[in-house]
Amino acid sequence: MISPVQNLSDDTVQVLQNIVGSEFVSIKNADREHHARDQSFHDAHLPAAVVFPESAQEVSAILKYANANLIPITPWGTGTSIEGNSIPVAGGIVMDFLRMQKILRVYDDDFQVDVQPGIPYKDMNAKLAPHGLFFGPDPGANASIGGMIANNAAGTRTPGYGATKDNVLRLEVVLANGEIIRTGTRSKKTSSGYDLVHLFIGSEGTLGIVTEATLKLHPIPEHFSAVVAAFETVEGATRTVSAIMGAGLKPVALEFMDTATTRELNTTNEFHLHEKPTLLIEFHSATPHAIEHELALTQELCNDNGCLNFETGVGRTERDRLWKMRHSTYEVMVRNNPGISFLTGDVAAPVSRYSELVAACERELEALHLRGGSMVGHAADGNLHPGIPYLPNDAASHARARQALANMVRVALSLDGTSTGEHGIGIGKIEFMAEEHGASWDVMRGLKKMFDPNGILNPGKMF
Amino acid sequence: MISPVQNLSDDTVQVLQNIVGSEFVSIKNADREHHARDQSFHDAHLPAAVVFPESAQEVSAILKYANANLIPITPWGTGTSIEGNSIPVAGGIVMDFLRMQKILRVYDDDFQVDVQPGIPYKDMNAKLAPHGLFFGPDPGANASIGGMIANNAAGTRTPGYGATKDNVLRLEVVLANGEIIRTGTRSKKTSSGYDLVHLFIGSEGTLGIVTEATLKLHPIPEHFSAVVAAFETVEGATRTVSAIMGAGLKPVALEFMDTATTRELNTTNEFHLHEKPTLLIEFHSATPHAIEHELALTQELCNDNGCLNFETGVGRTERDRLWKMRHSTYEVMVRNNPGISFLTGDVAAPVSRYSELVAACERELEALHLRGGSMVGHAADGNLHPGIPYLPNDAASHARARQALANMVRVALSLDGTSTGEHGIGIGKIEFMAEEHGASWDVMRGLKKMFDPNGILNPGKMF
Repeated sequence: MISPVQNLSDDTVQVLQNIVGSEFVSIKNADREHHARDQSFHDAHLPAAVVFPESAQEVSAILKYANANLIPITPWGTGTSIEGNSIPVAGGIVMDFLRMQKILRVYDDDFQVDVQPGIPYKDMNAKLAPHGLFFGPDPGANASIGGMIANNAAGTRTPGYGATKDNVLRLEVVLANGEIIRTGTRSKKTSSGYDLVHLFIGSEGTLGIVTEATLKLHPIPEHFSAVVAAFETVEGATRTVSAIMGAGLKPVALEFMDTATTRELNTTNEFHLHEKPTLLIEFHSATPHAIEHELALTQELCNDNGCLNFETGVGRTERDRLWKMRHSTYEVMVRNNPGISFLTGDVAAPVSRYSELVAACERELEALHLRGGSMVGHAADGNLHPGIPYLPNDAASHARARQALANMVRVALSLDGTSTGEHGIGIGKIEFMAEEHGASWDVMRGLKKMFDPNGILNPGKMF
Repeated sequence: MISPVQNLSDDTVQVLQNIVGSEFVSIKNADREHHARDQSFHDAHLPAAVVFPESAQEVSAILKYANANLIPITPWGTGTSIEGNSIPVAGGIVMDFLRMQKILRVYDDDFQVDVQPGIPYKDMNAKLAPHGLFFGPDPGANASIGGMIANNAAGTRTPGYGATKDNVLRLEVVLANGEIIRTGTRSKKTSSGYDLVHLFIGSEGTLGIVTEATLKLHPIPEHFSAVVAAFETVEGATRTVSAIMGAGLKPVALEFMDTATTRELNTTNEFHLHEKPTLLIEFHSATPHAIEHELALTQELCNDNGCLNFETGVGRTERDRLWKMRHSTYEVMVRNNPGISFLTGDVAAPVSRYSELVAACERELEALHLRGGSMVGHAADGNLHPGIPYLPNDAASHARARQALANMVRVALSLDGTSTGEHGIGIGKIEFMAEEHGASWDVMRGLKKMFDPNGILNPGKMF
C-alpha cells in the first residue's frame, strides 16, 4: 500500500484551496472525524483533509496533483457503506461529493437521467417522481449514486429491477492521472469495444472516480400488491422461490426471514406473524387485473410447498403495511437486545442452495454460542444477511462473531456462491478474495496496477 | 499488428498435433478456405492451419506455444459474424471449437447451464427444451455461444431477456500466455471484485479465449401473444414504443419495419400487410388472463399514436404465423432483387431518437441514389438494421453502399447512439472507435496490451 499521509503540508493545502476554493478544503477535526469511518465495525482512520470538489475538472486537478505527490485519495458519498469501503485507511484526502448532487438532465422518453455522483438515491427518486420515473436498486440506507456504483449496490427490489450494474449506461470517470474519460452510451444496446462501464462499477473507487453517470430508470408502477407467506420449513420457503420464478411470475421483491426474526417482530405487538420461516413478496403490475392472477398463482405455489399462512395486500398502502416489518427488523432486533450489537453478514449462493446456506449459517451461530442471531435476506437473489450478535465491549465476543462471519463466507463459497452479494469487498472481505477468485485475483491486481500505478485511489481496499 | 503468418513450419504442425492429436490439425486448403471469411463482405484471409481443440488444457497449450512463437490465433465458432470478427486477417491458426460443444451441466432449479463455447445456441436450446428452459438472446443465425459472448450478441428477444451480457454468470477463459482462469459466480448477485466477466464479453476474443460459460436461462413461457400494428408515420410507431414501455408493459420483442419492407413482403402473396411503418410486438405471459389485458392496453396505446391497423394473435401458432414475415425479410429482399446484394447496417440510438435515426438513414440512401433499401430493427432497443443495396460486381456501387453505412454510423453517434448495437466491431467498425470512445479507446488499448502483450489474439480486430 502507498505510504500513509497523516498531515498535508501548507503548500498542499494551498494547492487544494486554489483548485476548489479555500472554504472547500477542511483540516478541521470535526470534518476529519466525520469522514474517518463508515457504518461498519472497522477501525476509524482520520484523513489529513477533506475536500469538496464541484466539478470533474476540479476532481481531475486534485488527482493530477495527488498522483504526482503520492497522496492517498478516498472518495466519499454518504458514508453508509458497511465493509469499510470508504474508510481512509492511509489518511490523505477524503474527497466528499456533497457539492456534486445535481440532476443534470432527465430524458423522459428514454427513462434515463444524467446525474452527479453525490446525490443520495432517495433524494434523486424524490426529484424524479414528478417525471413518473425512479431508479430501481434500493440498498436501504440513503446511499449516494456514486457509492452505489462503486459497490454495485443492490437491495430488496433487485429481483424486479436489477442491481446497480444493470442500471448504468454511461459514466464520466477521472483516472488516477487526472485524465477525464467518458464511456458507455445512452443506446440501450451496444457491442462497441470493451465494457469499461462494468469494469468501473463495483471497483470501489480503486480504478477511477466517477463524476457523472447516466442511469436507466423505470416508470413508477401503478399497481402494487404484496404477500406474506409462512412455511413449515426453510426448504419449503426456498423451494417456493424457485417455483415462483419457474412459473414465469416476475416478483419485484422476494424476501426471506427466519423464525427468530418473526419472533422478534411479534414482540412489538404491531405485527402478528406466524413464527415460522416467512417469505415477503411484492409485485408491480401493468394492470389491476394482472394482480389477482399473480396472487392466485403465487398462493397455489406456496400451498404446494407447505405454506401455513398466506396473507395478501393489494394497493400501495397495503403493500407498505406488509413491508413495514421488513424495514423494522434491524431496529427491532437492536431494541429487543439492549447491550448487544450485530454484525451484518452479506453472503450469497445460487437459489437452489439457499436453504443449505441458511441452515449452515444457523449452525455457525450455534457452534460459536452466539444466541439471538437472525437470518433475513433477498431470497430471489440467493442473498442472505445473517445478523450476528456480539457484546460490543468484549473482544472475545467480537472475535467469535467475526469468526462466524468468516465461516459463513466459506460456506457460501463452498455452495458456488460469493463472499459479498451487495456490500462490496472494502476492508472486510479482502481475506476471501484469493479463495473466491483464484488466479483471477492476480488479473484484478494487474488492472489496478494499470489504472492506478501509484496506488493513490482508495488504498487498502480490495487488495 | 503482429506479423502475419501464412505458413506453419513442420515443427509447429508437429507441436500442434502433439497437443490435439494429428487428425485435429488441418493444413488442407478446403479447411483453410472454409475458415477464411465470415458472412460479411470483408475480404477473405487464409489461415495457415485450422486446429480443433477438445479442452481448456489443449487451448492453453496451444496459446502458450503461439504466444512464445508469435503465431496469430483467431477463435472460430460458426462463422456467422457479419463485421469480419472471425476473419484471420493475420493468418496463423484458426481455433475451431467444433469439438467443444458439450452441455456440461444443467442446474434445473437455478435456471443455469454450464456449456462449452462451440455449441450453437439453437442446438443448445433444443437440448434444454426437455428441462423447460432456454437461453434468451437470439441473434438469428445459429451462432455459437462462444461467438455470442465474444460479440455480446443480441436479437429480437432482447427487450424481454436481455443481450448476451445480461445472461452470463461465470466464465473459464484461457489468457494469451496459456493461463486458465475462472471468473464470476453462479450466485445471481455479487459485489466481489472487478467484473472480469463483462470485460471478456464483447471483447471479440482479443483479451482471452472462453472455454466454458455458465449461462442464465429462462423458463420456456407457456402463454404467447403477438401484435402487428401499422402506423401512419414512423414517428407514430416509435412514440408507441416509448408509450408501451412507459405503461409498464414488458414486451419480449418489439420490432420495427418500414414501408419499403412491408411492400417487399406483400409481393409474396403470403403476407397481407398494410404498406406502412409497422411494429411487431410479442408478449410472453405468466397467465392466459394476462394476455387480454396486455393486448387491450397495447391497442389503446397504438391507437393514441395513429395506428391504422391492429392485428393480434394469441398462442404459439398464431405468434409464429405473425412473426414469419419478420424472419423472411432478408430472404424476400434478396429474392425480389436479383443481382443485388445488401450490406446490413447495425446502428443504435436512444429510443426517443429512433424515428430521427430511421429518417436520417433513409435520407442517406436517397442521397447516394441507393434504391431498394429497407429499414428493419429492434425498436425497443433503438437498434436499426438498414439494408443497403449494391451491385456486387460494381466497385463504385459497393463504395457508395459503404459510404452510406459510414454516414449512418455517424448519424447514430450524433444522436447519442453507438456504432454497433449487436454485431461488434470486428474489422468493419474500427474506423469509428476513436470517434465513439475518445480517450476511452486508449484505455481499451491499454487493456489489450496488458492481456495480450504480443498481440496474438484475434489480431486486426477492434484496434
